[in-house]
Amino acid sequence: MKKSVGLVQTQIARINLPPDGLKLEKGGRLSELDVAYETYGSLNDRRNNSILVCHALSGDAHVAGFHENSTKPGWWDEMIGPGKGIDTDRFFVICANILGGCKGTTGPSSKDPDTGHSYGSKFPEITLGDIVEVQHLLLNHLGIERLYGVIGGSLGGMQVLEWSLRFPDKVDRCICIASAASLNAQALAFDIVGREAILSDPLWAGGDYYNTGSLPAMGLAQARMIGHITYLSPQKMETKFGREKSDAAEPLKKFNTRFQVESYLHYNGRAFVDRFDANSYLHITEAMDSYDLEERFGSLDNAFTAVQAKMLIIALSSDWLFPPEQSLEVATALLRAGKQVSYCLLDSPHGHDAFLLDIDHLTEAVQTFLCPVPPASPVHAEEAARAADRARIRRMLTPKARILDLGCGDGQLLAELADPTAPRPHLGIDIDLVNIVAALGRGLDVFQGDIDNGLGMIPDNSYDYVILSQTLQVVRKPRLVLQEMLRVAHAGIIAFPNFSSLGNRLHLAFSGKMPVSDTLPYAWYDTPNIHLATLKDFQDLCRRDGIRIEEIDCLSDCPLGRAFIKIGLPNLGADRVLCRISRL
Amino acid sequence: MKKSVGLVQTQIARINLPPDGLKLEKGGRLSELDVAYETYGSLNDRRNNSILVCHALSGDAHVAGFHENSTKPGWWDEMIGPGKGIDTDRFFVICANILGGCKGTTGPSSKDPDTGHSYGSKFPEITLGDIVEVQHLLLNHLGIERLYGVIGGSLGGMQVLEWSLRFPDKVDRCICIASAASLNAQALAFDIVGREAILSDPLWAGGDYYNTGSLPAMGLAQARMIGHITYLSPQKMETKFGREKSDAAEPLKKFNTRFQVESYLHYNGRAFVDRFDANSYLHITEAMDSYDLEERFGSLDNAFTAVQAKMLIIALSSDWLFPPEQSLEVATALLRAGKQVSYCLLDSPHGHDAFLLDIDHLTEAVQTFLCPVPPASPVHAEEAARAADRARIRRMLTPKARILDLGCGDGQLLAELADPTAPRPHLGIDIDLVNIVAALGRGLDVFQGDIDNGLGMIPDNSYDYVILSQTLQVVRKPRLVLQEMLRVAHAGIIAFPNFSSLGNRLHLAFSGKMPVSDTLPYAWYDTPNIHLATLKDFQDLCRRDGIRIEEIDCLSDCPLGRAFIKIGLPNLGADRVLCRISRL
Repeated sequence: MKKSVGLVQTQIARINLPPDGLKLEKGGRLSELDVAYETYGSLNDRRNNSILVCHALSGDAHVAGFHENSTKPGWWDEMIGPGKGIDTDRFFVICANILGGCKGTTGPSSKDPDTGHSYGSKFPEITLGDIVEVQHLLLNHLGIERLYGVIGGSLGGMQVLEWSLRFPDKVDRCICIASAASLNAQALAFDIVGREAILSDPLWAGGDYYNTGSLPAMGLAQARMIGHITYLSPQKMETKFGREKSDAAEPLKKFNTRFQVESYLHYNGRAFVDRFDANSYLHITEAMDSYDLEERFGSLDNAFTAVQAKMLIIALSSDWLFPPEQSLEVATALLRAGKQVSYCLLDSPHGHDAFLLDIDHLTEAVQTFLCPVPPASPVHAEEAARAADRARIRRMLTPKARILDLGCGDGQLLAELADPTAPRPHLGIDIDLVNIVAALGRGLDVFQGDIDNGLGMIPDNSYDYVILSQTLQVVRKPRLVLQEMLRVAHAGIIAFPNFSSLGNRLHLAFSGKMPVSDTLPYAWYDTPNIHLATLKDFQDLCRRDGIRIEEIDCLSDCPLGRAFIKIGLPNLGADRVLCRISRL
Repeated sequence: MKKSVGLVQTQIARINLPPDGLKLEKGGRLSELDVAYETYGSLNDRRNNSILVCHALSGDAHVAGFHENSTKPGWWDEMIGPGKGIDTDRFFVICANILGGCKGTTGPSSKDPDTGHSYGSKFPEITLGDIVEVQHLLLNHLGIERLYGVIGGSLGGMQVLEWSLRFPDKVDRCICIASAASLNAQALAFDIVGREAILSDPLWAGGDYYNTGSLPAMGLAQARMIGHITYLSPQKMETKFGREKSDAAEPLKKFNTRFQVESYLHYNGRAFVDRFDANSYLHITEAMDSYDLEERFGSLDNAFTAVQAKMLIIALSSDWLFPPEQSLEVATALLRAGKQVSYCLLDSPHGHDAFLLDIDHLTEAVQTFLCPVPPASPVHAEEAARAADRARIRRMLTPKARILDLGCGDGQLLAELADPTAPRPHLGIDIDLVNIVAALGRGLDVFQGDIDNGLGMIPDNSYDYVILSQTLQVVRKPRLVLQEMLRVAHAGIIAFPNFSSLGNRLHLAFSGKMPVSDTLPYAWYDTPNIHLATLKDFQDLCRRDGIRIEEIDCLSDCPLGRAFIKIGLPNLGADRVLCRISRL
């Protein structure tokens, strides 16, 4: 059981503004600005251990610990605390209610100093940019010049992206979870219908309901009900509710049902009305909907030109509100813009909201990215066996080369090759999240992905070498992978087992069975090696596809094999082959 | 360009009811019943060519052709007409507005004969069962005793299922498209929020708005907007609208946007109010939400016990309102209940609504199922090559055996084995829709599926033989497939290439390349044969996994190979092997 940060309280900062107030991006002005915030942990003497947490649509400043007389922890207590993902023994953590909110920061329900009444319909239009500017003003107010990191999920992730490009020299690490550079059409559609529900509630009264004694409760509850459908994956909906019915005794209203999912939606709709303001909902969703980095900068690549921070983009597999493709788009654009970026896709059945839960590996990925610690021992047993290949691969590389390692494992090779003076870091790609986290622990940039889906995220000629070690035979389309390798890099280094080694030939010829050996250790029925080839086959394919083999390094585990290699019969002698290839 | 059925008109039938009226399942009664319907084509003399089309939530009787002074065709004109999927030159097609609707059939907006006013809040609760009973009453009224077929998508598909089990001896063929035996939790949730929008519209007035001079237009439009999000796939939303904005000149209302998806939703919401009744929406969605065959019969298998019709269940790949898993569940339950059922999954990016479009193969599948015509020539070239295997497989089978053919191709083998007197038909499984349609053309029962995902839909011991011809080496998990084969059948027949044939051994030994031959015709880098084995390897695995090899039949294309087989060296001689296996 992890410790909590304990008792905390929300503070309100009255921000010093210029005489003409805070100018907003869409032209509006605010003459007064309050920001509600909480902090956890201590600012160190060098004032360089601050982490800003950005909250999502309906969140607030209370992200961890407990308020007095409450047993309900902050909304991300799972992540923040002593020894947790964001370790308050080490970091000074700040979270502030966003501009336009209703939890202490200036918003539509705040008192307009010019009139003495709530802003209501007079509250100006805000943007994600304004929200982040206000966070920046708060940090100035707190005397914090630079952030060790900024992190957030969903709408909070959009704020993280905005931080990375708006204040590039003030943040060192960004973690953007379950988010996007803009909402897609379906997510927009849900927001549009949600707002429509509020706007068509007669009690909304054009936004000026604060002094009417009533609230657009029906409309706001409706909007929240729609939201709640989108926060859960269909699988989660099914396992959580299915078609179960409640056995409540009270009679049903006409056209209501006893389905538990209906009680859940009703409960959450009503509860939201008690804790959230309809105008805040309208303003914040409007800011979210109009956020669009591509539109603003012409392209996502352009958007990220200024970024200096190391970026970690995390997607959730069953998130359909901010689907993983959108996170991958952000990560890919950062890569194309030449930035230090890692991407991982966490497997979770829970849907969008899962970023609030302690789902597998989320805490670990965040913690490892913030405080890299290399893995103590090889993550998988194969890593040890690949040590010999690593030494051979290193010999084939030119110094200072930029490397892309496909199937990079826990990142051992890239770590050995790391050069802090290089203008651009190496990149590893691996399908296995455990490997990805281990590689993050080495401080590497890594993408989680299946190279069978291609290398679409990598621009042409963006690396000097691409490495494919013991992987050619396990991919579904080896020919495509070879082509892709020589698209993204000037040269490639490939290590693969040679099916026509003396041992294999004799095995097949005399035992009449498929070869099983140190190099090909699996039985035919469960081998991952699905496209076996000989050195000659490989040479034929290279000839056919316009690939030059610059160097071949053959390895055999037996003396006879080594003798054949020596007398110029590598296709007979080699158990394993290493080739350096380039385009003809 | 296919012809239309031309000018049509909706007719109203006043149905003869017993003196105490029509008794409804939930206890209500209707003392008068009108049914609006259209027909196309002609009823033949034997009165056995009728096809009933069941419409979805907001449909009506006007399914094909044109009304006078209108250029808008019926809602499924793509499918119904001379030479179309449902050929009106051949069939007498009937479509009726459903009970509770607002397009001519008795519903909440109809005049209550007891009061002389619209039913409004007095309209009784209806069920899918009531809807289908009313369709049956209409058929009696028209003098139609028996249906050649019944077809429908979405809510219409639920009616099809209800027909199959409520009137099992009155329908010969059922086609259920993009539907389910009950809504899942997410679909329920959307309906719940949609109804909530209507119920919370003050103008709904408890359902009695017909004489108030106003309508719950806001609520109904809201409900429809939510619906429209669910009818399109996210991909379709993205390609259709993305984040495009309209350049309309009129000023925006506050918190409205210029996103095209907003105009689309607004337009459809408003248009719906003009053509649909809010109370009908409430009653019909309530009937749909409470439809639950599992709850009603204890299990889906039980639900389908009475079914006699040949069933075709069609799912759409990108449908997330009635996701393919739910169609597969229905198909699987029918299979477990021992019924004649085929299943196919059409690849479409459009989402749920795609069943209304002429998407690839939908028309073809419907047409072929209704009027089977065997394929003129082999669908794929491989079929011809497999002819020799077919003759050898037939020799290994016992007469009257029930057969499951995995990777059944266009169904040639099963067609050759078909026995109209057998108590239970054979089943084919294939991954390729073109094959599935061809097999439907032979009148076979076929499931579209990937056997790498297992045979979970097939109950234990439900076949005598399961056949796996030239497929063992292409599956990802050959060992699992073997185990599954002997779970679902008493015996299996497997044909596979022998990697240790003389030819292959010599090829590898002397050319140093991977074998390429008539039996293994692909290059290493693009072969689908990913788990190659020798006869001996196969025998070893069978020994290890408790599989008895009852008979081996070896084939070689060369005389020397045949000689080796003859002298008892099949692992050296055979190019191709056929084994009959069973559990030890």
